[in-house]
Amino acid sequence: MARVAIIMGSDSDLPIMSSAAEFLDDLSISYHMTVVSAHRTPERMFEFAQSAKKSKYEVIIAGAGGAAHLPGMVASLTTLPVIGVPIKSSNSIDGWDSILSILQMPNGIPVATVALNGAKNAGILAARILGSHDKEISKKLTRYQRKMKKTVLLKAKKVEDTKKG
Amino acid sequence: MARVAIIMGSDSDLPIMSSAAEFLDDLSISYHMTVVSAHRTPERMFEFAQSAKKSKYEVIIAGAGGAAHLPGMVASLTTLPVIGVPIKSSNSIDGWDSILSILQMPNGIPVATVALNGAKNAGILAARILGSHDKEISKKLTRYQRKMKKTVLLKAKKVEDTKKG
Amino acid sequence: MARVAIIMGSDSDLPIMSSAAEFLDDLSISYHMTVVSAHRTPERMFEFAQSAKKSKYEVIIAGAGGAAHLPGMVASLTTLPVIGVPIKSSNSIDGWDSILSILQMPNGIPVATVALNGAKNAGILAARILGSHDKEISKKLTRYQRKMKKTVLLKAKKVEDTKKG
Amino acid sequence: MARVAIIMGSDSDLPIMSSAAEFLDDLSISYHMTVVSAHRTPERMFEFAQSAKKSKYEVIIAGAGGAAHLPGMVASLTTLPVIGVPIKSSNSIDGWDSILSILQMPNGIPVATVALNGAKNAGILAARILGSHDKEISKKLTRYQRKMKKTVLLKAKKVEDTKKG
Amino acid sequence: MARVAIIMGSDSDLPIMSSAAEFLDDLSISYHMTVVSAHRTPERMFEFAQSAKKSKYEVIIAGAGGAAHLPGMVASLTTLPVIGVPIKSSNSIDGWDSILSILQMPNGIPVATVALNGAKNAGILAARILGSHDKEISKKLTRYQRKMKKTVLLKAKKVEDTKKG
Amino acid sequence: MARVAIIMGSDSDLPIMSSAAEFLDDLSISYHMTVVSAHRTPERMFEFAQSAKKSKYEVIIAGAGGAAHLPGMVASLTTLPVIGVPIKSSNSIDGWDSILSILQMPNGIPVATVALNGAKNAGILAARILGSHDKEISKKLTRYQRKMKKTVLLKAKKVEDTKKG
Amino acid sequence: MARVAIIMGSDSDLPIMSSAAEFLDDLSISYHMTVVSAHRTPERMFEFAQSAKKSKYEVIIAGAGGAAHLPGMVASLTTLPVIGVPIKSSNSIDGWDSILSILQMPNGIPVATVALNGAKNAGILAARILGSHDKEISKKLTRYQRKMKKTVLLKAKKVEDTKKG
Amino acid sequence: MARVAIIMGSDSDLPIMSSAAEFLDDLSISYHMTVVSAHRTPERMFEFAQSAKKSKYEVIIAGAGGAAHLPGMVASLTTLPVIGVPIKSSNSIDGWDSILSILQMPNGIPVATVALNGAKNAGILAARILGSHDKEISKKLTRYQRKMKKTVLLKAKKVEDTKKG
Repeated sequence: MARVAIIMGSDSDLPIMSSAAEFLDDLSISYHMTVVSAHRTPERMFEFAQSAKKSKYEVIIAGAGGAAHLPGMVASLTTLPVIGVPIKSSNSIDGWDSILSILQMPNGIPVATVALNGAKNAGILAARILGSHDKEISKKLTRYQRKMKKTVLLKAKKVEDTKKG
Repeated sequence: MARVAIIMGSDSDLPIMSSAAEFLDDLSISYHMTVVSAHRTPERMFEFAQSAKKSKYEVIIAGAGGAAHLPGMVASLTTLPVIGVPIKSSNSIDGWDSILSILQMPNGIPVATVALNGAKNAGILAARILGSHDKEISKKLTRYQRKMKKTVLLKAKKVEDTKKG
Repeated sequence: MARVAIIMGSDSDLPIMSSAAEFLDDLSISYHMTVVSAHRTPERMFEFAQSAKKSKYEVIIAGAGGAAHLPGMVASLTTLPVIGVPIKSSNSIDGWDSILSILQMPNGIPVATVALNGAKNAGILAARILGSHDKEISKKLTRYQRKMKKTVLLKAKKVEDTKKG
Repeated sequence: MARVAIIMGSDSDLPIMSSAAEFLDDLSISYHMTVVSAHRTPERMFEFAQSAKKSKYEVIIAGAGGAAHLPGMVASLTTLPVIGVPIKSSNSIDGWDSILSILQMPNGIPVATVALNGAKNAGILAARILGSHDKEISKKLTRYQRKMKKTVLLKAKKVEDTKKG
Repeated sequence: MARVAIIMGSDSDLPIMSSAAEFLDDLSISYHMTVVSAHRTPERMFEFAQSAKKSKYEVIIAGAGGAAHLPGMVASLTTLPVIGVPIKSSNSIDGWDSILSILQMPNGIPVATVALNGAKNAGILAARILGSHDKEISKKLTRYQRKMKKTVLLKAKKVEDTKKG
Repeated sequence: MARVAIIMGSDSDLPIMSSAAEFLDDLSISYHMTVVSAHRTPERMFEFAQSAKKSKYEVIIAGAGGAAHLPGMVASLTTLPVIGVPIKSSNSIDGWDSILSILQMPNGIPVATVALNGAKNAGILAARILGSHDKEISKKLTRYQRKMKKTVLLKAKKVEDTKKG
Repeated sequence: MARVAIIMGSDSDLPIMSSAAEFLDDLSISYHMTVVSAHRTPERMFEFAQSAKKSKYEVIIAGAGGAAHLPGMVASLTTLPVIGVPIKSSNSIDGWDSILSILQMPNGIPVATVALNGAKNAGILAARILGSHDKEISKKLTRYQRKMKKTVLLKAKKVEDTKKG
Repeated sequence: MARVAIIMGSDSDLPIMSSAAEFLDDLSISYHMTVVSAHRTPERMFEFAQSAKKSKYEVIIAGAGGAAHLPGMVASLTTLPVIGVPIKSSNSIDGWDSILSILQMPNGIPVATVALNGAKNAGILAARILGSHDKEISKKLTRYQRKMKKTVLLKAKKVEDTKKG
């Protein structure tokens, strides 16, 4: 049984969206990943979203490009937290279209939007949501944050060694 | 029985969307106008769109603001031509959000997008679509275009009379 | 005799615009495709647009880049429905110029605008317009939509098989 | 003890941010609301964020305008889920500055961004996050969504009665 | 006989466009001002542009808002220099639509674009064009430039007197 | 003695700006082309602009990228018509910076702005300005316009032959 | 003798620019404030900038709107640090024009750009520059920063008292 | 002991930021360059900024991409002048995100923003700030400006020799 659902509008979004899966893998958080197109499979989207709670998902991550309706439509059909990942697809207008059609949801139906192509951050945000009441995950997130710091310190050292004024 | 359906995401869109109705009234084209919210009444939207053909509509006009998913979602659930009207609602980002989330539909599901707040043009476009095989409407459109010309000529006269170099 | 006219501002638009033709081919809808430049051959554009009805076209698809005046000017010279395809040409400003100069038509003269480089959707929209009173085409569109669904389901399967949380 | 913290960069953000508080009030979810400025009180921000978990907050809502660093900086100092509300302050460039400086967080530190001035949706998103493991809140959210539907249906009725084609 | 033609897409553009006329009046340059709509009176636009040279105009100033096709279409039908004035009309998207549809002309057909609502500068540019071979006008322009300097110096004095550090 | 001056902010603009020179060459219009940097050689720019009339130039073409001050500053130091060419240099923000800093001149000092990288059109516009009182050039421009038409007709033929619906 | 020069392109910029003066007044830093227009008084601008060092100015603050060339041109004529204030004037395109024409200076000639209408911050930045080697000013800045903190804390208290979850 | 600190949010910013170091090297101005991430090492950023004055830095240069909080946060923790370099990182939205999140600082906390990727100009601006009270550096800057002029003149010569009208 998966705690997180990762859906995307098209399989061409997989190279971006798989970063969310990888992060959840790293934290041993179970997920289910599939393709659900708001425009090409609207009925499938309906069924997925309406049964999401029964499927025991706790968080949904939805990525889409262009006129990206998937995250918002799913959010309108469930009360689970939905994380939206705007994707800069080909023929997208520099990503503005997917950002705005995910972010600018009307009052009543929020989507937790992350950065353009920010699927990794979607994975981390899902973990933070689970971690807000799951101490194990919370600890792992603290460890992850500490690791990031160390990596930066190593890089800082490298830069300092290379260049000296 | 109405030939055109005019739907909008919120009753606050009515002051804009009624221009479409007025134009159809002028050309004696029957229409049905109501509120269908993609995000607050997704099931209603599904039913509306899936039964649109059976309801004998020939064209659908859908107006929405912000992350405007209504026109695109309706288009994904019917094969009728769907005209999208981006609306500059309060808290919209200058209308860019509604324009891009209506216009930038993926391959397979087109929405015939008109100008920001361009509900009147949506009405005219609906008439043009009907007029492509309905001679009566086609003639009325020709008359309408002639009338526009006359109005411009009168205004041109007025400007010429006012200012002389 | 062609039911749809596909025109473009320059032969450099052909790689994009041919997607419209291909879709119409797939649905066995007749079309005539040529180059009509609003700025380099204004008289030709006038003649084309003014005789479009007599030529028995039912829908016009017009693609153009940059300051894209072709769709709007043609729309002002006929009462047929005109579908505009904004094209991201070289030296275009990310496509914004062609989008805005096609979309933002004044009241009275609508252009049915599709996504940037969205020629395929222009073809589908033309078919939807014809299909609104032509049952044969309507059926083909339903079949096309069903096929899209199947393709997505296959891809969904593939993604699900690849990645397991 | 409050489950949600609502912070804002300036007291001038209160008219917007209070919508988040009102929604939480409606659902009887406890919260603490105060002003924390990333730029004018950086130490206060540090202390707030670093002690947020100990303070037993489960979600943080942070609103800010212009170069809005508050949500992202708080997110970097905790592992709790942080919801960012971009605010269109005076001298803001149409809200683009606050949207982009909240949304475009680098990999590692996500902020759950909602629409421009979307404080109400921030409140709802906080409730959804709590509701993902709190059945009481989950039920309330379902009731809220049902209420929204009813309101739309009433408005739809009104619009249908007013205008008849 | 007028040396400059001032045309505009709609009489609602007159409050802006009259600044061009006023400047030409100040320099005693003759002009003819009228309304020519590219979209509502395309034939009139054709006739105007094709006969502009025979009408002995030396420069054409054309103002338009939204999808502003007038300056570019006129330029395609004459070899006279055409000055385009983008106008920020209601429902315009902050003026971007008119700027881009006037400025971004394809190779072969230039439009001399001035600032948004910059009709006065269009008048001055027309005078500069005439002045490039008409010494009388050239002298007047030099005098005008000197007058501007004096005005600035007076204002500088005022500001210096008001505020002292 | 040259009738047109072509200046550019940097020699890296030459590949773009040389299109202006080529067009003038084609029409046998004399020009002088050089580098004048507003920011790196401000005194040189002053001298150039202030002596432009005495140098018998009739039109000035100025190209620049980024914060492009050259066209506007030259226009402030002469009464000759100045044509500005916005150039999309590296590190430019998609050309918006050069477009806006050339186009948005304050009242009193116009710059005749052409499209992004539109140096060829700058050459044609210069020829149109000269042609407004020089019949020889006017005739050449008419011939050029006729040639463009023929080229389009040939291409139209080609497209028609390739694709048949 | 003034340590800071505050110049602006037009006296209409005074309501914005006076905030810079007020801050310098508060810190008892001497300044000279006047109008210098790059486009209407280019010679005055040259003289001002070339003699700025001799005038013993240590920092220059320059505010301008639209195609804002003043800060960049002054920076090209001196080696003093120049602070640019983009001003959102009427007919400006939401301030984008002044921001980009001040910010996007080419390599070699920097302008220290502050926020749109950010004249107060320009004053503070000037003080920071002086304070980097003037201990008295440095102390005053520390005091100013402390005062800001206190103001925020008071406001935080107020917000906390008003709203309780 | 270094007079200038050059910090960057990530070591991937080094290829851009090293231009600042190179310019300071050319002028023999001492600097310290390292990586400080606002989001990954917030404590390190705090310590760096709060001890910057004691470390005897006179100017800080901070470069960052995306939601670039580093320059503004450092500016809030010191009274030294802080120069911000917006960096166009991968997944940045054409650099708009970093520009706006550095530039649009609220009143009280200025950041001296330079052009996108404008690290060289950041180095020059730092030198100008030091040069405002350090005659040696001031002289070097004058020499640098003279050298730039010469380079332009040489290039002008080259362009003039190549092309003759």
